[in-house]
Amino acid sequence: MTDNNALGRRYLELLEGRDWDAWVALLDENVVYDMPQTRELIVGRASFLEFNQTYPGEWHLTPKVVIADDERAVVWFDWTMGDESGESQTFLEIGAGRITRVTDFWPEAYEPPERAVSVERY
Amino acid sequence: MTDNNALGRRYLELLEGRDWDAWVALLDENVVYDMPQTRELIVGRASFLEFNQTYPGEWHLTPKVVIADDERAVVWFDWTMGDESGESQTFLEIGAGRITRVTDFWPEAYEPPERAVSVERY
Repeated sequence: MTDNNALGRRYLELLEGRDWDAWVALLDENVVYDMPQTRELIVGRASFLEFNQTYPGEWHLTPKVVIADDERAVVWFDWTMGDESGESQTFLEIGAGRITRVTDFWPEAYEPPERAVSVERY
Repeated sequence: MTDNNALGRRYLELLEGRDWDAWVALLDENVVYDMPQTRELIVGRASFLEFNQTYPGEWHLTPKVVIADDERAVVWFDWTMGDESGESQTFLEIGAGRITRVTDFWPEAYEPPERAVSVERY
């Protein structure tokens, strides 16, 4: 397990724990938070902290898979918010031990089309 | 770059190239293809090959970021199909140099809610 693997897991666990001081210490001052699905960017550690502190709802995050190399990590995690749940992914860019960019994907459930091959549902 | 990083990139590039013989050779015979958004599973190399060979539309895939460790890789890629485009993620489990499990996420664009902090749109 690389340091960046541990960093990715810690990023999510501190967010879940609302341990804001420890969480924000993982971030570069000029961190960029990117949400490609809505084409939104939040720039800077202070704004990104406030975004999370004020995010509505009783959200909970549990890491599922973390993969990392020398420059990046991805955290694939389960989330719940009230009766809703799903799986999401956070990609981290890391430089000098700090997170410089965060890109989140929040895929939603949908009904599949008919498939040409045999498929199991769960 | 680990071997699994190269394997992840090759998996996507061979799929884009419809180089079916080379692509299927990367897969374990009992590979499982998991689509959590639709809760679908396709089991076995032959079915997974047919699923891709028969997938409708003029789809194109370009790797964007690959992260890997000794057991896994993730490929974050751009896709286009006709006028549509987006970014998706494929997580690979790898054993003995072969891909044993593939989990795909296809996040869709959506309009963001009002945010409590300053946000840039792009």
